[in-house]
Amino acid sequence: MNYLITIEYDGTAYHGWQRQADASTIQGEVEKALRVMTREKIVLNGSGRTDAGVHAQGQTASFKSDAGLSTEAFHMGLNSLLKDDIVIRGCRVVGDDFHARYAARGKVYRYSIRNARVPAAIGRQYEWHIRGKLDFYAMQRAAVCMAGRHDFKAFEGVGSPRSSTVRNVVRAEMTRKDNGLVNFTIEADGFLRYMVRNIVGTLVAVGRSKMEPDQFKDVLMSRDRQNAGATAPAQGLCLINVIY
Amino acid sequence: MNYLITIEYDGTAYHGWQRQADASTIQGEVEKALRVMTREKIVLNGSGRTDAGVHAQGQTASFKSDAGLSTEAFHMGLNSLLKDDIVIRGCRVVGDDFHARYAARGKVYRYSIRNARVPAAIGRQYEWHIRGKLDFYAMQRAAVCMAGRHDFKAFEGVGSPRSSTVRNVVRAEMTRKDNGLVNFTIEADGFLRYMVRNIVGTLVAVGRSKMEPDQFKDVLMSRDRQNAGATAPAQGLCLINVIY
Repeated sequence: MNYLITIEYDGTAYHGWQRQADASTIQGEVEKALRVMTREKIVLNGSGRTDAGVHAQGQTASFKSDAGLSTEAFHMGLNSLLKDDIVIRGCRVVGDDFHARYAARGKVYRYSIRNARVPAAIGRQYEWHIRGKLDFYAMQRAAVCMAGRHDFKAFEGVGSPRSSTVRNVVRAEMTRKDNGLVNFTIEADGFLRYMVRNIVGTLVAVGRSKMEPDQFKDVLMSRDRQNAGATAPAQGLCLINVIY
Repeated sequence: MNYLITIEYDGTAYHGWQRQADASTIQGEVEKALRVMTREKIVLNGSGRTDAGVHAQGQTASFKSDAGLSTEAFHMGLNSLLKDDIVIRGCRVVGDDFHARYAARGKVYRYSIRNARVPAAIGRQYEWHIRGKLDFYAMQRAAVCMAGRHDFKAFEGVGSPRSSTVRNVVRAEMTRKDNGLVNFTIEADGFLRYMVRNIVGTLVAVGRSKMEPDQFKDVLMSRDRQNAGATAPAQGLCLINVIY
């Protein structure tokens, strides 16, 4: 049987999604729990990797098991075995050919910035604190130009090339609240490595008036990582959900 | 000079507000930082204690110092000395007679419940997870009867009697979000020890249909702690602000 699970995690304590021999990772922890439950050597196929320190509300992963357990047994059993910073939100049976990564039609990420004189104590694990006042409207103007089909090579992390760097961005929006919390939400059919964090780093350069909003589009068009801003810290990033 | 500071803290790692010889507390940490800054043996007077594990967005405390430091120096200096789970949100000079506790005219607390099949991973430190479906409207009906001046003795923690247990509740409201987050916000001119947590424990008994909404009023009127529900866990509680 082939199963799809939805996983929420607080990435603070983990070295990212991908299994590592000598470090604690989300994939590693869930696989360990699956093996305890089934006594099978199960391999968990995530929708994609998340980097060390990145969070997820709705990461997905598929796995095959012949243990004959119900979705309910997997759902509740895994939660009882996992620590409280990894939570299985759901489990369902999928077709034999289903693969969480290849079947994904899109993903939604959110990046949270606390733009305030002092950082927050409550929720500090989930946001990037930026003290200096950001020009929110300039960032918003820059962000909207990403909508549509573009080559995002300028925002791809070095040393991790993909065969195609063209992605279709369905949504790229910025919102803010009175308490200084600025959220950037982006939905696309796929993401390059460090793409969201590099975009956010560049948007913040715009917010700090180190770059004009119109220049953001030039950076995107240049396809040159050198022109983009620094990579934003991992802890502000959260994989909201995977679209099938 | 007499100063008033506003403090946000994530209480997870602390044994409450009040200084203890052999345990880490909020008051203890801030006093330690004040002493490093001023080389004076400063005593910090909080608006009131919070229990171990309780959080605050806007706790207040006053202290006297002859070091001649500016409010800005205290604000930023303390933040640079404190760990990131305690943040000074502001500092101002107050009159010589001002005392954060005696001057307080009221306080606002919020208690957060995650009423969902599975707990959250993100933000789990700040809420009480209750799996079984709560009757939100029944809880809401029970909550409103607290508005006004009442003797809250039924909700006072044992072993910590106050001369008067009469308090004036200005606001007692419940809200909920789609994700199962239920917030109970209460504002009063003062609170008894464990009062909010005992109220919430009793509201949850109503939500679980172990008590009728109308019975809640009877519990309040009885002035008998035996009739109230269990004390809700500390981690769901947050001191939102102190009113002067």
